[in-house]
Amino acid sequence: MKVIFDTDPGIDDAMALLYLSKLPEIDLLGITTVVGNADIATTTRNALFLRQQFGLSAPVVRGAGKTLDGVDKAEPVIVHGVNGLGEIEIPDVDEAGLHADEASQFIIDMVRAHPGEVTIIAVGRMTNLALALRAEPAVAQLAKQVIIMGGAFGYEGRSGNITPAAEANIHGDPVAADEIFAADWPVAVVGLDVTHDIILDTDYLAALSNEVGENGELLRQMCDHYARFYKEIMGLSGVVGHDLLAVTYALRPEWFETRRGPVLVVRDGVAVGQTIQMPETRKGGHPDWAARPAQTICTRVDAEKVLAHFRETVGR
Amino acid sequence: MKVIFDTDPGIDDAMALLYLSKLPEIDLLGITTVVGNADIATTTRNALFLRQQFGLSAPVVRGAGKTLDGVDKAEPVIVHGVNGLGEIEIPDVDEAGLHADEASQFIIDMVRAHPGEVTIIAVGRMTNLALALRAEPAVAQLAKQVIIMGGAFGYEGRSGNITPAAEANIHGDPVAADEIFAADWPVAVVGLDVTHDIILDTDYLAALSNEVGENGELLRQMCDHYARFYKEIMGLSGVVGHDLLAVTYALRPEWFETRRGPVLVVRDGVAVGQTIQMPETRKGGHPDWAARPAQTICTRVDAEKVLAHFRETVGR
Repeated sequence: MKVIFDTDPGIDDAMALLYLSKLPEIDLLGITTVVGNADIATTTRNALFLRQQFGLSAPVVRGAGKTLDGVDKAEPVIVHGVNGLGEIEIPDVDEAGLHADEASQFIIDMVRAHPGEVTIIAVGRMTNLALALRAEPAVAQLAKQVIIMGGAFGYEGRSGNITPAAEANIHGDPVAADEIFAADWPVAVVGLDVTHDIILDTDYLAALSNEVGENGELLRQMCDHYARFYKEIMGLSGVVGHDLLAVTYALRPEWFETRRGPVLVVRDGVAVGQTIQMPETRKGGHPDWAARPAQTICTRVDAEKVLAHFRETVGR
Repeated sequence: MKVIFDTDPGIDDAMALLYLSKLPEIDLLGITTVVGNADIATTTRNALFLRQQFGLSAPVVRGAGKTLDGVDKAEPVIVHGVNGLGEIEIPDVDEAGLHADEASQFIIDMVRAHPGEVTIIAVGRMTNLALALRAEPAVAQLAKQVIIMGGAFGYEGRSGNITPAAEANIHGDPVAADEIFAADWPVAVVGLDVTHDIILDTDYLAALSNEVGENGELLRQMCDHYARFYKEIMGLSGVVGHDLLAVTYALRPEWFETRRGPVLVVRDGVAVGQTIQMPETRKGGHPDWAARPAQTICTRVDAEKVLAHFRETVGR
């Protein structure tokens, strides 16, 4: 499976990237970066650091530093820390891993080079994907599929995190996200409805540190910061592995329950960034949704299998 | 329990009214009407008909024929029929049951007459309640509680019925609903998250007809029409008893699981009419919600108990 990983590292982004790097089924074409968990300079630097730390050969490709809706949004330093990786020590990085192109052009070039073969796993704001679609609408037909971590559809009462209505990746660039859902390519959505079941608690993180060696210990250290956020906001003893679940979906979609139907993003107002699906089973439809292709949202996941698979995989 | 029943009959409104009429705990002060399932002349005529049919002494009080947002909305004839009661034969009604006042003034007068004692059960658009609040904000302190059938919060994937985002009563007058949630009185919300568990199937309706006599047979006849709608839209063999569940909540709140937190209604745009709650357990909060009092939404219900209780009660 040829994969472009679009990311804003980010602690759970780091988990997802380590996961990807250990899966023999995955042929990682590139790591495209976007503003989100930190500014674009920081997320790109972090991607370069993780690339060398995890021993990856795929290039890092710098992407969008501004969102499409023109609204400046503060990066949530409280979640991922000022350096985006939970204030761990980050050494100087080797800029040789940085691709000369810009992310949206890289995405266009890769799907053109491998028509029908490229899976885009996007775990940050969807700005790079939207820019690629705007520059070359044929990207939608050329890509194999898009898997995003983003959104929330109310299952188990999970409607938002950055606001009561909206999940952070979608809220961060609602216009981009809405364009992704409107395009005629298969989009699968791994949102808060399922990611909040993926809780890496203290014991689990300790086991990663013991079993996975240096990179497991690195994840554990990053999570010290991340865990303070979850403790404070949700009273949780552990961290939520949002982004890693998008990787699981790419390989094991059968561990998820899903619902099909067109998805729309609220672009402004108090609910800005909210994702709303019209279930495909609904007869009659509604014009705002009916014009769009059906996409797949995840509604439930077998969290135990996911956590076991992640631990076993990164321990290889 | 002193109750004002604010309603737009409506087939499930008729179920709720029959239910109320058979509960010895309930002292029904009045039946206030509102545009919704049909126009105001029709819903008021239907309320008068049901009043005499069910042998009630409480007056019918005509309410709002237009919504507060100034948007004209077609009544959903497909759901409740042109006459609002599933095209059953409706005889001429006795206008003597009609109160001289207008609904919002009646609500104000009743809560003033019985401070701290009046429960308002509102199962249509919330226009009358909002007009009462606007004319006399002290209504919020004077009423005991408000129980509404309306809204949807995504539990079990239930986000809307009239649109993928919105439930019909809220969508019908989003401004009114938003003012109800903003006011400092205890509001309990029985929305699609729970009402869609209250399915009266063909066998159940036949049993009502057999056990309840004339009024049970009347409900069954109304439901012939209502069932065609549910068959067509949802492939359901039966009807959904939305409004009756607001009555159950008044008496048996312990049959419900709930979540507390301020609620906001989207007033315009593609998600207009959507209800969004910020859970009280969320730390940090969000300014648009934080200024409002916590309200109670129902997230789960013991449907079996409800259906047994309704059947047993209306059979008395």
